[in-house]
Amino acid sequence: MDPANHGASAVQPIRWHGDSVEFLDQRLLPRELSYVTCRNADEVARAIRDMVVRGAPAIGCAAAFGVVLDHGSPHSYEVLAASRPTAVNLFWALGRMRAAKDLRAEAEKIFAEDLAANRRMGDLGAELIPERARVMTHCNAGALATAGYGTALGVIRSSKSKHISVIASETRPYLQGARLTAWEMVQEGIPVTLITDNMAGHLMSRGEVDVVVVGADRIAANGDTANKIGTYPLAVLASRHGIPFYVAAPSSTFDLDIASGRDIPIEERPEAEVLGYRETRWAPDGVKVRNPAFDVTPAGLITAIVCEKGIARPPTRESIAALLR
Amino acid sequence: MDPANHGASAVQPIRWHGDSVEFLDQRLLPRELSYVTCRNADEVARAIRDMVVRGAPAIGCAAAFGVVLDHGSPHSYEVLAASRPTAVNLFWALGRMRAAKDLRAEAEKIFAEDLAANRRMGDLGAELIPERARVMTHCNAGALATAGYGTALGVIRSSKSKHISVIASETRPYLQGARLTAWEMVQEGIPVTLITDNMAGHLMSRGEVDVVVVGADRIAANGDTANKIGTYPLAVLASRHGIPFYVAAPSSTFDLDIASGRDIPIEERPEAEVLGYRETRWAPDGVKVRNPAFDVTPAGLITAIVCEKGIARPPTRESIAALLR
Repeated sequence: MDPANHGASAVQPIRWHGDSVEFLDQRLLPRELSYVTCRNADEVARAIRDMVVRGAPAIGCAAAFGVVLDHGSPHSYEVLAASRPTAVNLFWALGRMRAAKDLRAEAEKIFAEDLAANRRMGDLGAELIPERARVMTHCNAGALATAGYGTALGVIRSSKSKHISVIASETRPYLQGARLTAWEMVQEGIPVTLITDNMAGHLMSRGEVDVVVVGADRIAANGDTANKIGTYPLAVLASRHGIPFYVAAPSSTFDLDIASGRDIPIEERPEAEVLGYRETRWAPDGVKVRNPAFDVTPAGLITAIVCEKGIARPPTRESIAALLR
Repeated sequence: MDPANHGASAVQPIRWHGDSVEFLDQRLLPRELSYVTCRNADEVARAIRDMVVRGAPAIGCAAAFGVVLDHGSPHSYEVLAASRPTAVNLFWALGRMRAAKDLRAEAEKIFAEDLAANRRMGDLGAELIPERARVMTHCNAGALATAGYGTALGVIRSSKSKHISVIASETRPYLQGARLTAWEMVQEGIPVTLITDNMAGHLMSRGEVDVVVVGADRIAANGDTANKIGTYPLAVLASRHGIPFYVAAPSSTFDLDIASGRDIPIEERPEAEVLGYRETRWAPDGVKVRNPAFDVTPAGLITAIVCEKGIARPPTRESIAALLR
């Protein structure tokens, strides 16, 4: 059995062939469904850096396959570790590969475990979602961001029978919400409403959001959570309006070596992403740009963190320690 | 003297010629600098609806000129009042025109008074801006949004000698921040950093924002302020981080007939604006869209409102009543 080709949902972000790995090119979705083939660690690292493949758990799986393709060369670890700095799943996967005897078996296990963890998080998280809930999510923490099924979107998929609907924020500058989450929800037959990122506050103030569920790129020991830029404002607004704010992430996303969110490195991406979108540029010459790809949501704003090992509620540091023990 | 051609800044959003009015086409900036000519009220109403001309004070001036072009016909009032619902300056200007004897003189007076009000707000507001402040603004409350000089950007222009810098949020879906505010600041020689709307929280949490100044489309008697979508989240975040949040708006933006923000009508604009940008569409088929063009910031989140008649501080209802008496 080829584990990468047995995703729980129809979406296959990563296809593993033993001597190569294919990534569904997420830069082109939903306009075009095509794969990029990588045959060595350099090509995998480039696919991660250029966001052909993205999403913390998916990056972890991709890096593991990259190591296999280079037969565990020191270069493979080096180039993959340098691809993107924030998602800890990457470093976690490289650590597992370093300790493994059978590289191919270990990479396939990382992939299969991620899929299973998403299913388990879906089951656990669905208990938190009310009937007919209007669920807001940000970026794409879906099948595309993982081995398959998804973290936040896994929780949403597992809640489908409750007749929920989804509000997806578009997630500038890369538009993962508008392009990827919206596409996954349409495929799944779950009603989805697209908004720009700055509309979340208005909808919350009008009572149009029942719950927020997002993924994570790195969770510190105290529960502070780095996730896609724009997550922190959603958490602040949800808190103001008494709306539950949930994070869904596998245990590979926790970094217990980091005490709080202050110590999580935040990637700054290229200026061009903010100056426009793809071939369209709308900003004038002469402007500076900031492009932090992630922000940090303090644990105090998070109602609960859904992990495949259970649900961590405040006091979060203690709950996380107990779950991951 | 042709008052519309004597804006305080180089930007001329409205050029009045007596038998026609030209609007700088704000849909095409900064890529293209061209004017749309309107010869009757229907054409002016269409220019307002299609956002050739936008910004609450500019819409008020445009409507006044539209009435002149139709010689005060009942149809002109009707079609202009139906163009956009949220900015009260439109209805305020139509009210002044209805009561006027000399339509052309009144429209030119409305225009000249707006320019003078912006200058005065600039002087008053600049006293609130610290030396070397990093000033965040949203949307475009600049020369382009007014008869000239600007409300929020007027305050910023008048603070130029303090060596300030500006952080402009791009303001999806119409990108007034990325296209118009960034362009005005580059023209003015004020350093400007562009961010996507969802980055404001991160920058504030890292101590990179000293003050926020925005414009307004309608201010209720209690100080609740409707402004471009995304203003409310900025106010919530500024409050959390102890950052002063100022609104700059002329007295024509106040609507004392409305007790609180709950009663301000919020325009919903076409779906296409959220599904992509201009000719580029990035969202998949099958998604629904929400596109509220404005949100309401409660008075309690506003440090002060700068008006040409003075500065209204909490208790805001009383301060506003005293200023506008």
